[in-house]
Amino acid sequence: MAKDKRPLEELTLWDDARQMIDKARRDGVETVWDRLDQQTPHCAFCEKGLTCNKCVMGPCRISANGNGNGKKRGVCGADGDLIVARNFGRFVAGGAAAHSDHGRDLLETLEAVGQGTTKDYAVRDEEKLARIAAEAGIDCAGKDATRIAAELADRFYEDFGCRKGRLAFLPRVPAKRRELWAKLGVTPRGIDREPVEMLHRTHMGVDSDPTSICLHAARVALADGWGGSMIATEVSDILFGTPRPVSSKVNLGVLKKDQVNILVHGHSPIVSEMVLAAAREPEMLARAKAAGASGINIAGLCCTGNEVLMRQGIPMAGNHLMTELAIVTGAVEAVVADYQCIMPSLVGVAACYHTRFISTSDKAHFSGAEHVEFHFDTARAQGRKVVEMAIEAFAKRDPGRVLIPGEPVEIMSGFSNEAILGALGGTPKPLLDAVASGAVRGVAGIVGCNNPKLKHDHCHVTLARELIKRDVLVVITGCATVAMGKAGLLTPSAAEQAGPGLSAVCKSLGIPPVLHMGSCVDNSRILHLCAVLADALGADIADLPVVASAPEWYSEKAATIGLYAVASGIHTHLGLPPNILGSELVTGLALEGLKNVVGAAFLVEPDPVAAAEKLDAIIADKRRALGLKA
Amino acid sequence: MAKDKRPLEELTLWDDARQMIDKARRDGVETVWDRLDQQTPHCAFCEKGLTCNKCVMGPCRISANGNGNGKKRGVCGADGDLIVARNFGRFVAGGAAAHSDHGRDLLETLEAVGQGTTKDYAVRDEEKLARIAAEAGIDCAGKDATRIAAELADRFYEDFGCRKGRLAFLPRVPAKRRELWAKLGVTPRGIDREPVEMLHRTHMGVDSDPTSICLHAARVALADGWGGSMIATEVSDILFGTPRPVSSKVNLGVLKKDQVNILVHGHSPIVSEMVLAAAREPEMLARAKAAGASGINIAGLCCTGNEVLMRQGIPMAGNHLMTELAIVTGAVEAVVADYQCIMPSLVGVAACYHTRFISTSDKAHFSGAEHVEFHFDTARAQGRKVVEMAIEAFAKRDPGRVLIPGEPVEIMSGFSNEAILGALGGTPKPLLDAVASGAVRGVAGIVGCNNPKLKHDHCHVTLARELIKRDVLVVITGCATVAMGKAGLLTPSAAEQAGPGLSAVCKSLGIPPVLHMGSCVDNSRILHLCAVLADALGADIADLPVVASAPEWYSEKAATIGLYAVASGIHTHLGLPPNILGSELVTGLALEGLKNVVGAAFLVEPDPVAAAEKLDAIIADKRRALGLKA
Repeated sequence: MAKDKRPLEELTLWDDARQMIDKARRDGVETVWDRLDQQTPHCAFCEKGLTCNKCVMGPCRISANGNGNGKKRGVCGADGDLIVARNFGRFVAGGAAAHSDHGRDLLETLEAVGQGTTKDYAVRDEEKLARIAAEAGIDCAGKDATRIAAELADRFYEDFGCRKGRLAFLPRVPAKRRELWAKLGVTPRGIDREPVEMLHRTHMGVDSDPTSICLHAARVALADGWGGSMIATEVSDILFGTPRPVSSKVNLGVLKKDQVNILVHGHSPIVSEMVLAAAREPEMLARAKAAGASGINIAGLCCTGNEVLMRQGIPMAGNHLMTELAIVTGAVEAVVADYQCIMPSLVGVAACYHTRFISTSDKAHFSGAEHVEFHFDTARAQGRKVVEMAIEAFAKRDPGRVLIPGEPVEIMSGFSNEAILGALGGTPKPLLDAVASGAVRGVAGIVGCNNPKLKHDHCHVTLARELIKRDVLVVITGCATVAMGKAGLLTPSAAEQAGPGLSAVCKSLGIPPVLHMGSCVDNSRILHLCAVLADALGADIADLPVVASAPEWYSEKAATIGLYAVASGIHTHLGLPPNILGSELVTGLALEGLKNVVGAAFLVEPDPVAAAEKLDAIIADKRRALGLKA
Repeated sequence: MAKDKRPLEELTLWDDARQMIDKARRDGVETVWDRLDQQTPHCAFCEKGLTCNKCVMGPCRISANGNGNGKKRGVCGADGDLIVARNFGRFVAGGAAAHSDHGRDLLETLEAVGQGTTKDYAVRDEEKLARIAAEAGIDCAGKDATRIAAELADRFYEDFGCRKGRLAFLPRVPAKRRELWAKLGVTPRGIDREPVEMLHRTHMGVDSDPTSICLHAARVALADGWGGSMIATEVSDILFGTPRPVSSKVNLGVLKKDQVNILVHGHSPIVSEMVLAAAREPEMLARAKAAGASGINIAGLCCTGNEVLMRQGIPMAGNHLMTELAIVTGAVEAVVADYQCIMPSLVGVAACYHTRFISTSDKAHFSGAEHVEFHFDTARAQGRKVVEMAIEAFAKRDPGRVLIPGEPVEIMSGFSNEAILGALGGTPKPLLDAVASGAVRGVAGIVGCNNPKLKHDHCHVTLARELIKRDVLVVITGCATVAMGKAGLLTPSAAEQAGPGLSAVCKSLGIPPVLHMGSCVDNSRILHLCAVLADALGADIADLPVVASAPEWYSEKAATIGLYAVASGIHTHLGLPPNILGSELVTGLALEGLKNVVGAAFLVEPDPVAAAEKLDAIIADKRRALGLKA
């Protein structure tokens, strides 16, 4: 028997979401909250990180409190600390691998452009190509964009191997931080190497010191943040354009009652940019009109959405917990998915309506989905194909089952580092001056996902509001975007909600107090910005009044992001803990011990107001250490 | 309360082991069997592969039988099939990563030799260096060994990246098999890339088709077998010598009452060869004598043991389940460990005696161990240091606590492919002729570990005896070695136990009916030998009367080995299943479905006699298909 359903207001902050959860219940559609109820209570061993499945002498589980039938050690002799550390190490490796393998896909596209084996993709930002190539040590003189693209792809491929002593972007890291990493032995060597070594270390009978595994986890995460993710971001800008401030809209109200609605979902712009380009072709529009629609409406989910929002102003339909609910509107003709964070449940939800669920990546098949595999030499044609599939589906839409809730909210997006520094006149000095004066007391990056264990978007929005009130500039990526957007925080008028200093700065620049910097790989933009600020002061990142938060995180990628932020010197708040509480040693390292090692640590706090106070206190400390008014 | 201890005869086949388990009980030392008892019964969810910890919306568990409170899907919507496949995918990635990262360490040593940054290592087999370099496409004319080593290291590094279209050793794969892999999309691209992509695919919301994940698992395994492991083997031969037939001894009786006993444990020859070289220095012997010992005795455990047995004739003290028991003799001064399969419990067992437990790898620290980190530029000095530490410990040995059981058994080892083909006169033809005539009906590779769930070494030995009786030549690696050796099967006189055909062949060549081919990375030798045989017939590996078995496996590496054997076309027996039984789909694919895909599959059979019959039937089928008498 199903448990009693929880009241809607406990589940989410938003009316559009509540209407759709209610509709899902009426339509007999199971959602993520239903499944969470079924899976609660969770296995206490697994939740504490105390189970091990890494060999078939087990599986094993540890009774940390000593009351559990004497299960103090696994069959191999691993204790709870080691088992927790091994699990956490692999968790971080999973996140790093996802980001970096995404980066590899961009690199393969850049290579195809460089080698002329695709006509569907091109270099859209030649200035950035030349700038990044020069940074990577390539002599661009007299070379055209194609040749430079080929050489840059070659250079970045080296980072994925284990051949070079250092990653291409390592010089971006402030010198003090680089020296610290070298001393600790956590300088990342190769983007693929570090997660592979983590798998090796966590095999039975390899690294059996929890602290050693946790240190390597930092190295794995750094290979992501300053390696795979950074390459993904920079190459995406080169291929699809560097974001500039752009206006758009957000929430389920962006779906159009009279148009063919296509949702792009996942993380890679390689697919979504092609779907968008196809949808803008006159022939496709004509077909849509012939099918009775007034147009073709592309809207975004999750980070693929962020990618096309940042560069193309495409509206956002929702974030992680809205992906099922967007389909429940009954107004979506197709969900076009690439990879990452795409709930397997979506195939079944789509099947309850007329919606076609289309997978596009050879590495992300979905049982029951239609598969249209995108390759760089045929991508535009594949883009047309999926648009045609959506147009076909439009005829099958049942108007009696359509409910598009709410009115879209205006947002401003597109704050790449280039755009931010551009708005500041080309140098970070005005921002540093504002920090020095206390007008902007500090900067907080709020990033990451949703988690049905927490009231949807509540922590994101509350934390941001509390921080801007305290004159802390907030920068965001990932699923935080939709939360902040729906709350009205991504418009210049939101400056009214900020403290007096931040409010004045935002008004003078015409920017919101919460700046959208992109998708989850684009957290590399935040790292880079921190490095630029630190270098301008001749300081380490850990000296800056900068904090990070993933208040509603759920994924391995988010854990990796959190760890590379901490290992880069940024104190990081999590709204809920990873599965490490079974080990006092690992938990203590995460919350305290890391401070002595990398100068930053995690703090776990589910209450967003309390979290804001704690982050504010960290910013005040950093300001005092810099000789500034707290 | 501890459960009643199981009778010794249920635990192990061997008297030396029984005496030591008995002594451990008297000495109050906990062993792997005690911990297995404590961990039994295992969590049924974990055992079936039905738990997922890959995000913090969970942890989740699936009730496959539908009677478990409606837990049919995880919070993300993953069903049991997907959860099992994702877990198995990561399991295989863990094994591949371990082998391949081991290969990388050999490669770094080869590079150091090539660049002249080490004096401690050198090219011991210049003929093999030149041969492998030529195979890898390097023009060796006029180049000295150092230069060739540098160029070969460069070439192999490419395989670890993702830059090249194919692995260096891919041309070794018979053409039909290569074509099949290309058609299936499982040709391995990069040694590090494939496990990283597996981590990516198994992140929430990426690959959500169990079959797709399982196919990629095959690709991951092939990147190990024909990539990382093969490089590890070939470079080890180049640096430390290609094995030739050699005599030695096996069981705990190889420990010497009046000598400094040092056990080398783990998998890499990089450390053990240096320890051995140091122990052979006159100065070290003099020190040992000054300490009252008559000499220094190096003996091997697990695959590090296999490495120095194959090349140096060093005796083997034991395999996986003997590692704790070797220390319980009270006669071991030091255990020098590199990495893999080193039970974390060993540190505690060593602490119960005078034994020093010394870790040597930066990627394998052990809480409570003494750490002497080996680097290629200081390795010989580190080797001396650990020998000195052992000599120091000799003074603290308590003769009242020493019990060295049994008399060592003679063995013959050293059967590299070069040695086997050499014995056959340089070509595989005599072996193929013997197969054609039915004198040798087929070949079975028996490999892998021990598992305390199965009576120690019983399945290894029984299976081998049953197969040689049926005129099936057995080749072995890994922990099977010690089992076969203790059973007397690694001597030419064991030909008496073989069927008439095999017996005659062995007698004519003066070889045992069970040939020791090396450590677990050296399963690549078996792959290569199969390829040579298939090419000689213009056939696919799947056409050969060849089977594989890991009767007592426990590790992720063993699962990976099994999968690359199957994906290479070799039917493979497992004595116990991986944690996949929660999915009929994945289990069906492993046991049956793969036959239609790659022409081979797994069979699971705990009874070694029944396993022998099933493997024999497969060999008979293959023989009939080749037009030979079954």
